[in-house]
Amino acid sequence: MLDEPHHDASEHLVSNPCPAPGETVTLTVEVADSGAGVSSLAVRTVHDGEAAWAEGRRAGPGRWEVALSAHNPVTAYRFWLDGPGGPRWLTGLGVVHHDPTDHHDFRLLTTGGTPDWVPSTVWYQIFPDRFASSGRHRAQLPEWGWMSRWDDPVATGPRSMTQLYGGDLDGIAGRLAHLRDLGVGGIYLNPVFPGRSNHRYDATSFGTVDPLLGGDEALVRLRRACTDAGLRLISDLTLNHTGSHHEWFAAAQADPDAAEADFYYFVDHPHRYASWLDVASLPKLNHASGELRQRLYEGPDSVLARYLGPPFDLDGWRIDVANMTGRRGHDDHNEVARRSARRTSDGVDPARWLVAEHFFDPSADAGPGSWHGFMNYAGVARPVASWLGRRESLARLTGGPGQAPRDGVAAARAMDAARSVLPWQTVLGSMALVTSHDTPRWHSLARSPELARVGLGLVLTLPGAPCLLYGDEIALTGSDAEAARRTMPWDTSTWDRSTLDWYRELIRFRSGSRALAHGGFRWVERAPDALAFLRRTTGEHLLVRACRVGGAPPLRLPTGWEAELVAGEGTARSGPDGLAIGHDGPGFGIWRLLGDGDHNGD
Amino acid sequence: MLDEPHHDASEHLVSNPCPAPGETVTLTVEVADSGAGVSSLAVRTVHDGEAAWAEGRRAGPGRWEVALSAHNPVTAYRFWLDGPGGPRWLTGLGVVHHDPTDHHDFRLLTTGGTPDWVPSTVWYQIFPDRFASSGRHRAQLPEWGWMSRWDDPVATGPRSMTQLYGGDLDGIAGRLAHLRDLGVGGIYLNPVFPGRSNHRYDATSFGTVDPLLGGDEALVRLRRACTDAGLRLISDLTLNHTGSHHEWFAAAQADPDAAEADFYYFVDHPHRYASWLDVASLPKLNHASGELRQRLYEGPDSVLARYLGPPFDLDGWRIDVANMTGRRGHDDHNEVARRSARRTSDGVDPARWLVAEHFFDPSADAGPGSWHGFMNYAGVARPVASWLGRRESLARLTGGPGQAPRDGVAAARAMDAARSVLPWQTVLGSMALVTSHDTPRWHSLARSPELARVGLGLVLTLPGAPCLLYGDEIALTGSDAEAARRTMPWDTSTWDRSTLDWYRELIRFRSGSRALAHGGFRWVERAPDALAFLRRTTGEHLLVRACRVGGAPPLRLPTGWEAELVAGEGTARSGPDGLAIGHDGPGFGIWRLLGDGDHNGD
Repeated sequence: MLDEPHHDASEHLVSNPCPAPGETVTLTVEVADSGAGVSSLAVRTVHDGEAAWAEGRRAGPGRWEVALSAHNPVTAYRFWLDGPGGPRWLTGLGVVHHDPTDHHDFRLLTTGGTPDWVPSTVWYQIFPDRFASSGRHRAQLPEWGWMSRWDDPVATGPRSMTQLYGGDLDGIAGRLAHLRDLGVGGIYLNPVFPGRSNHRYDATSFGTVDPLLGGDEALVRLRRACTDAGLRLISDLTLNHTGSHHEWFAAAQADPDAAEADFYYFVDHPHRYASWLDVASLPKLNHASGELRQRLYEGPDSVLARYLGPPFDLDGWRIDVANMTGRRGHDDHNEVARRSARRTSDGVDPARWLVAEHFFDPSADAGPGSWHGFMNYAGVARPVASWLGRRESLARLTGGPGQAPRDGVAAARAMDAARSVLPWQTVLGSMALVTSHDTPRWHSLARSPELARVGLGLVLTLPGAPCLLYGDEIALTGSDAEAARRTMPWDTSTWDRSTLDWYRELIRFRSGSRALAHGGFRWVERAPDALAFLRRTTGEHLLVRACRVGGAPPLRLPTGWEAELVAGEGTARSGPDGLAIGHDGPGFGIWRLLGDGDHNGD
Repeated sequence: MLDEPHHDASEHLVSNPCPAPGETVTLTVEVADSGAGVSSLAVRTVHDGEAAWAEGRRAGPGRWEVALSAHNPVTAYRFWLDGPGGPRWLTGLGVVHHDPTDHHDFRLLTTGGTPDWVPSTVWYQIFPDRFASSGRHRAQLPEWGWMSRWDDPVATGPRSMTQLYGGDLDGIAGRLAHLRDLGVGGIYLNPVFPGRSNHRYDATSFGTVDPLLGGDEALVRLRRACTDAGLRLISDLTLNHTGSHHEWFAAAQADPDAAEADFYYFVDHPHRYASWLDVASLPKLNHASGELRQRLYEGPDSVLARYLGPPFDLDGWRIDVANMTGRRGHDDHNEVARRSARRTSDGVDPARWLVAEHFFDPSADAGPGSWHGFMNYAGVARPVASWLGRRESLARLTGGPGQAPRDGVAAARAMDAARSVLPWQTVLGSMALVTSHDTPRWHSLARSPELARVGLGLVLTLPGAPCLLYGDEIALTGSDAEAARRTMPWDTSTWDRSTLDWYRELIRFRSGSRALAHGGFRWVERAPDALAFLRRTTGEHLLVRACRVGGAPPLRLPTGWEAELVAGEGTARSGPDGLAIGHDGPGFGIWRLLGDGDHNGD
């Protein structure tokens, strides 16, 4: 696999992966010194809709360079290689021997890349009602809810939505020492606006933080505590719908001539209206309304802008059901919404982050001026789960049949397909995750505790901003999304200490590694039971290997390579035939590479 | 290959391939009676951005059916199959064993399909100056041109652009008997607006047909003659640029405050401006101007509408450099232009056709309300030429290095890639072609006269509206685009009669075949030296085979199939092991299938 020419659009191989409009950047292609048979290389791009070409030059052992002008907001390119090895294309899918479409071209965006800090941050997702309680607001039981004690089990069925445990923002602020100990860099908070359910995706207002969580003041306190602890903080905004008890929907139902009546799709005013997946409590928003857009995400007075600015200073938003937002039959306002939201966010500060929920292939919604990234279910969660997850649980990741156990070859192919249709900056701006509050817990989905660790290892080392769900670090289980939203147990004597230590080691290494945050990505092993890849940037060259069984043949690297295990587990044995990287059973390790493995660049 | 499950979005396998918004259609999947191992089938679609599923049912031997609601303007879908054969997806690329992106999903459009007559029509492209002269206008030599006699050779170098032979529209009208004899169904005319070159892509006005060609009256006469001869007629409209002598550009240069000044991109008025590929005589149009859009293609008074209506009644337009139209750096008005042009055309008559020039992957410009189709260089011309063309001429199809000889497997893969990213209706609305006035002539590009026939056979049988260049039928040669634009020789004693007879047979069969125009497409052989596929609709089941060498192994079909050669050449031998379809050397044949080959459907 190392004999194949390689490129990715990372900082390691593109002189400026976030070029200004019209800027010329230098692209590097790594070519094996021997065997690749490349005697000419050219880059093919699309310039104002027309193919354009530039010739490359050999820039040293194993390296070709070529200049590319980032002329259009999306500058797509692929390479044409010729020589004794035959004519081939090098695309985001690797080397192909037929004439491809442009879908897997590498892509640069000139509209601003992902903020540098995003992929450097390991995220810790918190469902506010279930992580920690300050005790201050437990008395304020709303009329729609019922209160449980912290150690009570999660309810099942319809009552599960209104079950409250009294977790709140001050509770979270009081537990940041745990996060610092774990080594994570940021918190992703599920919605904090008031609703009529414990998940709060049925907002009744965007005007204030839910008093049950402590209100606006508690969010400000949490923000300050996070800043003091060196933690980033984002929350969750729904643009697709509101709750049916939202103040806007009340105004809309009360008066068909109210401005708010245009915010929704009334089929027969006031009681028949479009809603999210036909759930009547979640009326769908109609983004044709300019007034709606302004209130929600257009300009500095919008909800989106307000919480990104002082005193809340959220570092970004996760955008709920971004895939459906603005879409209904022949209506498609999604592009208007995402571009406007991005402009607003950039207007507050281009270093804010917008990451969009998308369970499926998000590539049609990527591009210039769109979300920085997506929750990467397509490129990380589903492939990892298909390789390591229980057959009977996989359907819960898709909501339909289309998910089956896969071997490592098919899982890698799915990762490659998903990654290659997105700009690299979008991959870096996406959450690498395997589960969330919307899925079974990973320690229930994985086939064994060992394989759960392997999967989380992949989440922490594949491109993107890794995101864990609170409690993953102590191996909490939960067989569906409701069960996953259990309370965090704070009696530490109940914790799985070895799992915690394992995560702590991995997370700490991940948080300090530029290569894992920003480095290029290159496969060195795609086998049924083992996957291994390189992550590389200037001065740091890592090998990551994941293995799901005992007895898998080791990965063999040529003589001259040396590897030092820096996190996880595994063996590296040098011999006359080269270096063998192996695992005795299910395992996951990260090695620092030295020697010939480092011969390219640097 | 027949053991693999199959679907395409043709009329044979979709109950209504052009559904109304919200209409529910029935999809059919063909599954081999034995061996496919399918025990469940579901369709996966995207509904307002969210995945949605429907379960299929076994509808008879070898057939599964499933209902699909065409909810969104583009309704994309793929199939999930499970059973003893294992879980798999069936996409536009065929069966895949990993989780794919949505790019190769099948696609229905609810915004109106391709007019039924389009793919039934074999097109004959005419470069007006070079096909036939009535003699009436040869005296009107413009100041920029120089006149040659009909039998003079084509000039080379800069003077080639201003060389005139005096071909005109009445000349064409006088030669329709040749077209009727050949059996073609429509004429595609290169531009007829006045310019300052023989190609006329540098229009000086859109107000009238070039007097050198006979003016508006001659176009009306040609239209009527075509109607009488049962021929369709389209011409060529450039939206990307005008000539620098266009009346709009003159007004723009004369007065920076003129409305026309906004039609162009002046960098430094009046002499520095953006132009097509930096050719100063072709100033680029700026589609941000609403006035420009209205004059050119928006509404019933636009140029585009005027010639689609009486008395000209063109059946459609080929849109020149559609891929670049409206695109310049951060400006991208392409979608506005193509949707507006389509609305205007549909406003005249939804049975008019807009087919866009696109030398590359056009899929990003396809979709609801876009052009009906494209000149299919990506999916037909380049794959066919890579399989049958001379190595040294291939670069002239791309304008860059990226074209190499390919075997049949790679050529088929390129065809599949290009076809699978377009809605089927867009494929049907596209021109199937191998060369044009912008390339070498096919009889020069192909490696031999025999292979030229094989390639034209593919053009006539692959999905889309076949388009030949005048003179292909008598094997005219020309080693580059200029040489290709030679005059049509009317001394029929010089014609290659055997080639003409061959084309006449193929074209006549093609023109009468619903299966070749509208039937599904399914590979049965993808070998280095032979390609074979089925085209099928209700009541007509055809096998097409192309072979590029002697000694290629025959295609073997199971016992029970019978085949009757209906056009071209080849052998069909029945034996105890089944049916062998073969060629003794380079060859091309079409067979009608009977017997078990017909067991599905009908």
